Amino acid sequence: MSLDHLFANRTSRMSASEIRELLKLLDQPDIISFAGGIPDPAYFPRAAFADAMTVALSEQSAGVALQYSTSEGYTPLRDWIAAHMATLGVPCSRDNILITAGSQQALDYLGKLLIDKGDTALVGWPTYLGALGAFNAYEPRYDRLDPSDNRAPEQIALEAAEAGGRVKFAYLSPDFANPTGITLTQQERRTVLARADALDCAVIEDAAYQSLRYDGEALPSILAMEIEQTGDIEACRTIYLGSFSKTLAPGLRVGWVVAAKPVISQLVLTKQAADLQTATINQMAVAHVAEAVFDTHVETLRAVYGKRMHAMLDALSANMPTGVTWIEPEGGMFVWVTLPNGMDAKALLQDALAANVAFVPGGAFYADGSNANTLRLNFSMSSEAKIIEGIARLGAVICTAMGEVSPRA
Amino acid sequence: MSLDHLFANRTSRMSASEIRELLKLLDQPDIISFAGGIPDPAYFPRAAFADAMTVALSEQSAGVALQYSTSEGYTPLRDWIAAHMATLGVPCSRDNILITAGSQQALDYLGKLLIDKGDTALVGWPTYLGALGAFNAYEPRYDRLDPSDNRAPEQIALEAAEAGGRVKFAYLSPDFANPTGITLTQQERRTVLARADALDCAVIEDAAYQSLRYDGEALPSILAMEIEQTGDIEACRTIYLGSFSKTLAPGLRVGWVVAAKPVISQLVLTKQAADLQTATINQMAVAHVAEAVFDTHVETLRAVYGKRMHAMLDALSANMPTGVTWIEPEGGMFVWVTLPNGMDAKALLQDALAANVAFVPGGAFYADGSNANTLRLNFSMSSEAKIIEGIARLGAVICTAMGEVSPRA
Repeated sequence: MSLDHLFANRTSRMSASEIRELLKLLDQPDIISFAGGIPDPAYFPRAAFADAMTVALSEQSAGVALQYSTSEGYTPLRDWIAAHMATLGVPCSRDNILITAGSQQALDYLGKLLIDKGDTALVGWPTYLGALGAFNAYEPRYDRLDPSDNRAPEQIALEAAEAGGRVKFAYLSPDFANPTGITLTQQERRTVLARADALDCAVIEDAAYQSLRYDGEALPSILAMEIEQTGDIEACRTIYLGSFSKTLAPGLRVGWVVAAKPVISQLVLTKQAADLQTATINQMAVAHVAEAVFDTHVETLRAVYGKRMHAMLDALSANMPTGVTWIEPEGGMFVWVTLPNGMDAKALLQDALAANVAFVPGGAFYADGSNANTLRLNFSMSSEAKIIEGIARLGAVICTAMGEVSPRA
Repeated sequence: MSLDHLFANRTSRMSASEIRELLKLLDQPDIISFAGGIPDPAYFPRAAFADAMTVALSEQSAGVALQYSTSEGYTPLRDWIAAHMATLGVPCSRDNILITAGSQQALDYLGKLLIDKGDTALVGWPTYLGALGAFNAYEPRYDRLDPSDNRAPEQIALEAAEAGGRVKFAYLSPDFANPTGITLTQQERRTVLARADALDCAVIEDAAYQSLRYDGEALPSILAMEIEQTGDIEACRTIYLGSFSKTLAPGLRVGWVVAAKPVISQLVLTKQAADLQTATINQMAVAHVAEAVFDTHVETLRAVYGKRMHAMLDALSANMPTGVTWIEPEGGMFVWVTLPNGMDAKALLQDALAANVAFVPGGAFYADGSNANTLRLNFSMSSEAKIIEGIARLGAVICTAMGEVSPRA
């Protein structure tokens, strides 16, 4: 029996992620895949987690670790995060922090908290697809968040009102964004904040990759900049999303939200109604591991992933023909490549797979499937040697497709 | 700065759980509390979980345990659940199963999947408050699901249409429901199915307590009965929710949904967009522990909790004055008590706390706060000796409030 006729209208906007479906196909051992977007499991702090679980499941602690706990999250973990945020220029207390099942869950809860059907969300173009997936369930309209947009805020607000709602938030990932690797300048961050002020909307700052900087100077988060302006997190409209998925391990599903207390209080109610709490034992384990190894472990990841990023950038320079361009990231996990106009990365993927190398066609990151001549390369999952070999294969495939005999080098 | 003016309309229906707030106050060591609703941590299978985590975090396994995995859930766990469901009269495959972060999350996802604003959900009266909390975010209308309701289905459907939607599902917990402890007879289960057929709506069967039967014969689940009628889970409208929270441990947040494949497929998309997946390591640990000890552990719990239930029922008989009645459950965690008409359990709680005994006033389980003369007693968290002492204290408090000098015994 089909129950499809009972499904809510919102389900028409909830479809399978093209990338997730693609990734299932690419998981073959002889392929060098730049298609994923996940951390290298060889660098998970396994021993620290094993210690943490032994402690959590000791006779003194297991009764707490295996039991229900509060929706807000495990207090020692929230305290660790508050101290961590202070080092990032965000002085706050544990009451400004909610623990979530990864920052994906925070995106879902913020959609639930803020979006009435027909409201407008400002998003990058392209943007993190998982954010659109989470927001879609609440049936928003999207408008572009573009620092170079020269429409007046009044115009943006008017268009939102004409669409039947109002602008509720701007969503962005200011550091090494997925998929483009772009980092916003301080001036661009100021512009985002000023526009949010003018529109009287929230800012959702997705800081999933913030700790993974390999080059250049760290920039303050948007929340840190707003606290500097206003003097107090309680006076801020920015909602900051952090995650341990890229720094410690994603398989525990632990992330966090930092915001003014009234926002956190309403998110706590949202979480209470939606899944009661994030797993107690996971929060205890992450608190233990963060306390023990966070800083040194992140240093290790920066060294490893930084070398891989540079290996990829060097290999692109050596192997790509003239007309192919890319954005040089300063961190994160991705390099965003643009092929000459008229080329189709989706068609190219077939040739690439035949040559045992894989990537994600960039059109998947645009809700309208435009920009077919872009592609995303991941460098966190492959050794430098594999990166050099894989980019050489990809360069040859692109040269052939372009009718070039050799790269510009 | 307040962002309250940006909150979605649905947040007006998302308020703090009165019970959760109450429980915070009752957590004092000298009080004998029958107010909670949680398993006794003394009986968590701690050693089995410690073994499971050691295996999951071994060098061979940690790369999987700490990594992202699929939204559907960990295959060996889904296979264990499929075999478990078969023993309950529900033959199914792993593709009929989605792993969720407890069955609370399944309630949230089913609200998202099925409810358009103004649609009708049929619920018990009283019912599990957490279900109403989860559904409220999707702005349904509620109507009563009552096996003795003599309205024709056409009438129920007409009232739903007049309210601007249609009946999407009936939600119920047929075995030892929270808060009443009531178990539906087979005939009542048939009636629910027949009414759902007539209304062409889904049935959400919350089986959180199904394994915790201490007296009487097990009854088939509604899903098992529907499979017997139709011959195939794919022909069923019942969506079954299972949980390891009451049998193994709640702190890992692992539950499951069993339904026809098209329902599961849409729920997988819902989960992918909402939190990607349930924590990988938790699913591996639960699979290991379920495989190792589920049946023997549930036998232990049945013996322990069964004795506590009988201690409470005997103590009630010995200590309650005439005019106080209660429902004798056959399992679960709760006894539902009705005071004489006109008595207010909320006022009584103040006297009870002064006598160092606590419970949850039953009005909290009615959306409209009616039935103020009811109360819920939990027996899973107290030893038999504490139960005997606590019910004696409560009996004395009730006798005093009623102006009686002694119990009917």
